[in-house]
Order: sequence, then structure tokens, then C-alpha cells
Amino acid sequence: MNFNDLPPALRASFLPPPRLLMGPGPITCDPRVLRAMSYQLVGQFDPAMTDCMNQTMALYRGVFRTENRWTFMVDSTARGGIEACLVSLLEPGDRVLVPIMGRFGQLLTEIAERCGAEVHTIAVPWGEVCDPAQVAEALDRVRPKLLATVQGDTSTTMCQPLDELGRLCRERDVLFYCDCTASIVGNAFETDAWGLDAVSAGLQKCLGGPSGIAPVTLSDRAAAVIQARRHVERGIRAADDEDAGGERIRSNYFDLAMIMDYWSEARLNHHTEATSMLYGARECARIALEEGIDEVVERHRIAGNALAAGLAALGLALFGDQAHRMHNVVGVYIPEGVDGEAVRGRMLADFGIEIGTSFGPLHGVIWRIGTMGYNARRDTVLTTLACLEQCLRCEGFAAPPGEAVAAALGAFS
Amino acid sequence: MNFNDLPPALRASFLPPPRLLMGPGPITCDPRVLRAMSYQLVGQFDPAMTDCMNQTMALYRGVFRTENRWTFMVDSTARGGIEACLVSLLEPGDRVLVPIMGRFGQLLTEIAERCGAEVHTIAVPWGEVCDPAQVAEALDRVRPKLLATVQGDTSTTMCQPLDELGRLCRERDVLFYCDCTASIVGNAFETDAWGLDAVSAGLQKCLGGPSGIAPVTLSDRAAAVIQARRHVERGIRAADDEDAGGERIRSNYFDLAMIMDYWSEARLNHHTEATSMLYGARECARIALEEGIDEVVERHRIAGNALAAGLAALGLALFGDQAHRMHNVVGVYIPEGVDGEAVRGRMLADFGIEIGTSFGPLHGVIWRIGTMGYNARRDTVLTTLACLEQCLRCEGFAAPPGEAVAAALGAFS
Repeated sequence: MNFNDLPPALRASFLPPPRLLMGPGPITCDPRVLRAMSYQLVGQFDPAMTDCMNQTMALYRGVFRTENRWTFMVDSTARGGIEACLVSLLEPGDRVLVPIMGRFGQLLTEIAERCGAEVHTIAVPWGEVCDPAQVAEALDRVRPKLLATVQGDTSTTMCQPLDELGRLCRERDVLFYCDCTASIVGNAFETDAWGLDAVSAGLQKCLGGPSGIAPVTLSDRAAAVIQARRHVERGIRAADDEDAGGERIRSNYFDLAMIMDYWSEARLNHHTEATSMLYGARECARIALEEGIDEVVERHRIAGNALAAGLAALGLALFGDQAHRMHNVVGVYIPEGVDGEAVRGRMLADFGIEIGTSFGPLHGVIWRIGTMGYNARRDTVLTTLACLEQCLRCEGFAAPPGEAVAAALGAFS
Repeated sequence: MNFNDLPPALRASFLPPPRLLMGPGPITCDPRVLRAMSYQLVGQFDPAMTDCMNQTMALYRGVFRTENRWTFMVDSTARGGIEACLVSLLEPGDRVLVPIMGRFGQLLTEIAERCGAEVHTIAVPWGEVCDPAQVAEALDRVRPKLLATVQGDTSTTMCQPLDELGRLCRERDVLFYCDCTASIVGNAFETDAWGLDAVSAGLQKCLGGPSGIAPVTLSDRAAAVIQARRHVERGIRAADDEDAGGERIRSNYFDLAMIMDYWSEARLNHHTEATSMLYGARECARIALEEGIDEVVERHRIAGNALAAGLAALGLALFGDQAHRMHNVVGVYIPEGVDGEAVRGRMLADFGIEIGTSFGPLHGVIWRIGTMGYNARRDTVLTTLACLEQCLRCEGFAAPPGEAVAAALGAFS
């Protein structure tokens, strides 16, 4: 391969076009996070690096609302954080109960099956959330080791209430896991107060960062389950290192016992920490705590409500149980006779604004429009509504002029 | 948690101290890579994003010296790239042969065992490489599905010759995998010419980027083995999607068949691509190809030889078979009576230079000093030698004044 023979686009550095990302995530990054990620690296065991790791642990305790010692990062996208929790907690044959309200509940079943777990599910129609009584009945019937849930399932925009589920799990000595990637800091989330044992997240939604690292927190009882499977790798094993005796975790990369050794004072080498992503994760948490978690959630609530009001004023029907809608993403029916992809294409090509399509049974039925993280703002909501009105009109839908922006302005004031 | 009550270090953004990273990796990033990673995100299926993904595939074909269609990224550190290859290629009960010459060969056995494979090993003392005749004998005895190797094992600084092994594998219809994380573009590497079927890497060594994404390439026959295990996830499955019928891959996150669907024209959603890491990976490859792969390898060879000459002139003994040393990292014995950690501590605290410690049997025995990627330069080598001379003297070792820098200057000229 001769460099000078390559097409110009390959020879040049990549310069992304300007976009306003108003889909279900990833969203436009907070510029402070991008700045943090542009800083030079330090070594893996440099005191400055281990300080940065410890600070990041402390800051995410604030984000997750927990006192958990074991609050740290997994170096993968949010999906890998889910797998790390499930493969480290579940042994082959363990029973797990998964309430499914959308695509990401189904993902939990896919991952748990590959851990060798015996997976039981309860399901509600897309656009609804699970009733705690339904979960209680299933817990009593299945008697699982773990209840695995999703708080905000972006596929349907629904936000599952969790506080009652935590109580049900504690009463039955069931471990309680939640994937809060899409919802954290956009909606109230209380690890300790709600009795959660394992939680995983990502940066690319309301935290305002890029995908690529997964914050995780574990209760002491979850940590004990995982550490009973602890194993020190050959090649760094000292003469007095002994395995804990439990069944070895099926993944080396997602072995949380090893990752905990890396994030502990022992600093046993595992992977090489993704330093730039760590810098970004630290800054995401710092920014959220500086604003105040309650204040960030409220900002998302206000922006989401204004967006929903504007979409309704355009004459569009909102999708799903609005009492349980996530603050940070609104599902809206594509109106009859309108080509949904043509509207999305115009939004992107003519206005540089991305809104989301949908998965599975909702594909071609609804759009998903997000107001998340850095983009949970008045100007982004108003601009999106103004441009969507124009695109709908171009595609033959009689959008009432000015109503959407007026309704959103009203909601904001 | 009240933000204003937090310690000042937590309230502030993280500002890394200036460091010259001359260990076994990660190393100081090329500033062009940090700039690329500071650019704003685009959406996951934006044409600009899929263009960027396709360009990155093309650029890594140049890095890996391959025509392989399936040349793409896994969103994890290099260790996750290894696991993705092994868990996708190996089914429980499959036999795998691993030649071990250091810690990272042992890592391959750890990962392959957790895939449920039947792992066979051959080993050489740390500081040597495997003889192809020894591998041929073991291939005939074990008759494995896969030969899993490491090219450059930084734990020992050795670089395993691979061209002969590829021929041995083809003759026996054995799949041939290599982890070239630590060696790629610092040492010659030829995916196609050497008959490799699966290769994984990382950015944080000679490619001059941060850890956090793993470039992978697969031959058509490796891709066929993996695609025979293809499965489409519930939640995005269309009515006419059928599983390929092979045993399901044990990991969802590292399921290369799914990741290939995401990187193909089908663009089936899997994880959310780690966009900033992708930008960084693309720029790493672009920079290497712009300089020319042969030229980058030669720059590493010259810098490594100069470093080795300087260390020898200091009166230090080099570790391992120098005929098979990686270009980009030199192992050197800590001299008798000198506290190795005190020297490393002085280098970091007084000069801002990091040199490496070692693992396992070499811990406390050798230092490892790297000249990699952006840091494979004359000024970095000379500065490191000058400062090491000072630190050795402070720790009571009679380092000959000026000899190290003179020897390195001689090697460069």
C-alpha cells in the first residue's frame, strides 16, 4: 500500500461534520469531556494515574448515589459492562429472572444465556413498564439468584420504577442488577436507597461523553459473590496467591474479581487501562456533580417535557405510557402517509440534526428524539422542533406553523 | 454528596503531569491522535460515521499488510481483542496449542481455558523464542484446531518469528492466530504473507495511541468458522433472520459474527461504537501509513539499537536473546546492589521519565525500557540515557560519565 496512491479521503485526518445529536444516543459530547480526553497519557501505575482512578471511583459514588467501595470502570462500551456484571455474578445453571419491556431487556436474556444461566422472563408490551406485583409473583415462582433489569429502555422510551423491586429482592435474598446506561443522571437513580447490588452504565447518554467505558458499582454482597470466584492470572501470580475456590468466571476480560484487584491497592495488572476514556469518564462525573445530580435530572425532565409538548403541538401522537416515560427520550408516531426515513434524512442533510429511528416492532412506526446530557437544553429543543416542522411540511404533513416552538417555550417558562 | 464539600482535587478537572513514557507501554501519544480524539461525535449510523468506519478498515489493511475484508475494531483494550478472537474461533472442547515464551503466552492459555478449549502448551525459558521444529512436533502431536501465538511478548522483550509457523499451520489445516499488540509497526508483520488467520492488536505501543480499542483482522477461512456460529440478537431480529446453526459464541460482547454484521453493509446494531477511540485508531493507522510501515519499523529498529548500545555502555547487561529482541523494548538487568525501584522512582520524580518494572520471574531482576511509536526518537533515547546515568550514580552505581549518550549517538549516526 503506497500512501500517495490512496484516495484523498484516506490520506486526510478525519474531520467530522457538525451535527446536533438529538437521537437516543450517542449525543453531542460536552466540550469539557472532549478536552479532558485530549490530554496526554501518564503511565499505568504512575501515582498520578492511580490518583485519577481513585478520584474517578469517588466521583461515581456520587453519580450512582452509593457508598459502595467497589465503584469502578470496565473498559468496554456499556454493553460490555452488562456482560461483566452478569458473567461475574452468574455461574452456569444459575437461575436469573429478566423482566422485558423492550430491546434491552431482551439483550439481558441474550447475555445471561451465554453465561450458561437458566433464564426466566416476564414481559410487558413495548410502551409499558412492569408491575412490581408481577415481578413479586415471578420471583416467588422462579426463585432466581439474580433479578436483572433495565431502568431506561431506549427502544421504547420507558423508565422502569425500581425502588419497590429492590425491597422484593432483599426480602427473598435475590441479587438485584440494573443496567442504567440510558437513564443515569437523566432520571432519579438511587443505588443504595433502592437496594441495588450491581449496576452498570455508559457515558454516551445523559452523562454527555462518548461510548467506550462502562462505570460499574457493586454492593458488598455482590462483591462477595464475585470474590469467591477470584483467581490470579499465571504470569503475575506470586507463590502465595491462592484461588478463592469458586467456579472460575467464564471471561478473563470481564472477570470483575480481577478488575477489582486492578482497581484496589493491590494494583494487580489486568488490562492496560483505557486512559483517555478514563479521563473522559472522570470529567463526565465531575461535571454532573458540579451541577448537582438532582439539578441535572430536573434539567432533563424539563427539556423532555418541553420536547413532548412541542411534538404534541405539531399534531403528532406520543408513544407509550407517558407517566413512565424516561425524561431524556420521547417516542413519537410517524404520521400516516409520511416517510419516516425521508424526514430523518432531511433533518440530517439540511439541518445537521440527527433524530432516531427504532428497532424491532417499532421500526418504521416511531421516531425517538432525545434531549440528553449536554443537549438537554432549551436551544436544542426549540431548534429541533422548528426544523422538524419544516421537514414534515416538505414531506406533505400539514404541520401547524409555529405551534411546536410556542408549546415548548411555554413548557420551559 | 455536596460538590462544594469535596476535596479540591475532586472538584477540579484532572490535569495529568508531564511525562515521557519510556516503559513497555502505554507510551506518550502522538499529539495528532489526541487531536483526532478531541473532535465532536457524529451519530452511530450517520453516513460520515460509516464512512469513517470503512476508511478505518481500509487503513488497517495497510497496517496489518492484508487484503482481508474483515479488518475492523473491537471496542475494548487489546486484551479484549484477544478474547474476541479466541472465544469466536474456539468452541468448548476444541484443542488449541499455545507456545509460551512469557506472560502474554500464559495469558492466551488463561483466555482459551475460559472458552472451554482443551489447551496444550509448549514453553521456552523467558528470554528465548520458540523453534519452529518444536512447534511442528507439537502440532503433529496435539493436532489442534488453532495455534495461538504472541509476536512480541513485552514481559521478556522477545519477538517470535512467525513466517515459518504460518507454513506449518497451512500444511496441517490449523488456524493461526497472533496477538501483535506490542510489536505491530515496530517490527515487521505480514498477515497475508505469513499465512495468519486471525490477528489482534492495540494502539498503545508502536501505533502511538491510547489503550481502549483493538484492531482485528480475519482471513476468509477464519471468518467462515465464525460466521458458521452467526446469530441475530432478539430485539433487532427480522422475521427472515436465521441462525447459522453452529454452537453459539459464549460471549455476546465479543461475538465477532455480530461485530462483523455491525461493520458490514448490513449495519446491524450491536454495541454503540466507541467513536472517540475509533477516531484515534483511524489517525494512528493514517500516521503510520503516511510515514510508511517499513520506515516506521526501521525507525523503531534504530531507536531500539541505540538504546541498547547506550545501556550496554553504562555497564549494564542486556536481558534475553538479542538476536530476537523486539525493536521497541529493551530488557536490562538491574545491577547488583542497586535498588531498582529507587532508580525508577528517581527517574519519575526528578526527571518525569517512566521506565518499566517487570512481571513474575523477572520482577526485581530487569527493567524494561521502551522506544515506541511517537517516542521512538533520538531525543527521547538520549534524554532517557542521560537521566538514567544520573539516577544510577545517585543510587551508588558507578556509571561511566557520558558513555551511554556517546554510544547511542554513535548508533544513530
